[in-house]
Amino acid sequence: MATADAGREALVALNASAAFNRWAGFELGAVAAGAIELRLPWREELGQYAGYLHAALIGAMIDTACGFAAYIQVGNVLASHFAVNCLAPATGELFIARARIVKAGRRQVFTAAELFASRAGVERLVATGQAILVPVEAAA
Amino acid sequence: MATADAGREALVALNASAAFNRWAGFELGAVAAGAIELRLPWREELGQYAGYLHAALIGAMIDTACGFAAYIQVGNVLASHFAVNCLAPATGELFIARARIVKAGRRQVFTAAELFASRAGVERLVATGQAILVPVEAAA
Amino acid sequence: MATADAGREALVALNASAAFNRWAGFELGAVAAGAIELRLPWREELGQYAGYLHAALIGAMIDTACGFAAYIQVGNVLASHFAVNCLAPATGELFIARARIVKAGRRQVFTAAELFASRAGVERLVATGQAILVPVEAAA
Amino acid sequence: MATADAGREALVALNASAAFNRWAGFELGAVAAGAIELRLPWREELGQYAGYLHAALIGAMIDTACGFAAYIQVGNVLASHFAVNCLAPATGELFIARARIVKAGRRQVFTAAELFASRAGVERLVATGQAILVPVEAAA
Repeated sequence: MATADAGREALVALNASAAFNRWAGFELGAVAAGAIELRLPWREELGQYAGYLHAALIGAMIDTACGFAAYIQVGNVLASHFAVNCLAPATGELFIARARIVKAGRRQVFTAAELFASRAGVERLVATGQAILVPVEAAA
Repeated sequence: MATADAGREALVALNASAAFNRWAGFELGAVAAGAIELRLPWREELGQYAGYLHAALIGAMIDTACGFAAYIQVGNVLASHFAVNCLAPATGELFIARARIVKAGRRQVFTAAELFASRAGVERLVATGQAILVPVEAAA
Repeated sequence: MATADAGREALVALNASAAFNRWAGFELGAVAAGAIELRLPWREELGQYAGYLHAALIGAMIDTACGFAAYIQVGNVLASHFAVNCLAPATGELFIARARIVKAGRRQVFTAAELFASRAGVERLVATGQAILVPVEAAA
Repeated sequence: MATADAGREALVALNASAAFNRWAGFELGAVAAGAIELRLPWREELGQYAGYLHAALIGAMIDTACGFAAYIQVGNVLASHFAVNCLAPATGELFIARARIVKAGRRQVFTAAELFASRAGVERLVATGQAILVPVEAAA
């Protein structure tokens, strides 16, 4: 557990420590107790065959945002399960995942997230998802 | 529907048409009717904070392999749902996803996949997953 | 689509038409556009080995509530996928599932639900879930 | 852990100890290390509005079969997550769920199951599913 400020600094460092996150361009947005925002500006390298955001990145944003939400409260975690619903073609200039803790148990942390696509400042819900995370000490 | 050879060629082209797949380095392995193999050599850029294969890539391999298995039988599809179980730390020199069609309905194609990590030629199951895909014509 | 009143009457009839729902004792609670409440008083026959509400009923309440939420907006549906997270032992005098439509597409309706256990009027979240439903005409 | 015979006896007792299982009429079929079969003869009380096996029972059979498969190897468990794909209308004289352990970790047991509908001795796959179970001691 951490104050929001310390939590924010720790998340920025965590985000920077993952090679894939650096390549993808994940940026930390708002941070609150048990809830965080993850942002990703669009570029072509992130696309699938039709030019939408690739399901890999949809899953990545949801899984990463959920993991970050859990991290603030319980420290290092590993995803044991995550699931994604793709509701609409993910196209936009900016993607924003908002994740929150649903229930933080001792052995499993249940989280949920929404992914929004932003175009000209207008957000549209394009995916929802959830993740079950296991605290690393417990997993050891 | 397509013969296995035509299916293989079409999948190689499909894989090459997705910018993210090119960056990640996805390679098509064995192809059969309703079942395909997708391969990904490890490199550091694919890692999460602890140096394991990032959940983004675990999800990407499962979602992509499932989509490819469906594509052979029904043509272009979009993922509407996918779910991943992370069973063990995904570390190795090469990752291999094997996907198959479970049931190809007219509106929804149900698929499942396993992800193996290979080290010195020995494979280990590290994740399982499934995807529900919607044929693009039906989704239109 | 239907007015809330017509929707309520139709749901009461739908609920009464399912043999399992009658046995279980599902009761319709509040009904709004794209959101409904389903209630189930506890009795021993609904329990698993430890005396908690059986996962069958947890899944049933979530799936049924999601289906009812979809029904108001799109008519008869069939579940093609549902998933449940069990957050806490489901014990109480009354169980209340609250479901809502997340996105109603032409071919798939995405829904989500929470299940609460009530004891002495105090509600506690015990499960979350989601369902993907297919309109029956589309499924035909 | 237990021998198959002791495992079978323990499962029969476990099945009998759950009030809902007795009402539903679940019967234990074949039992092997990490794999079990659960059977349910059809009767009208198990139906949804169209007369198919209710999703509650589809979920119940998958969750229960997965839990039994885990029980043989690790003892008492609680479901923390389960998911079901409904592939085809579940109609028949007898339903058979076959479940197996995919990975038994110390904190989480990953399992998978298929549900078959049998009519005149011919089986048809009608649903697939999976469950994540937590050993009760670990959950305590």
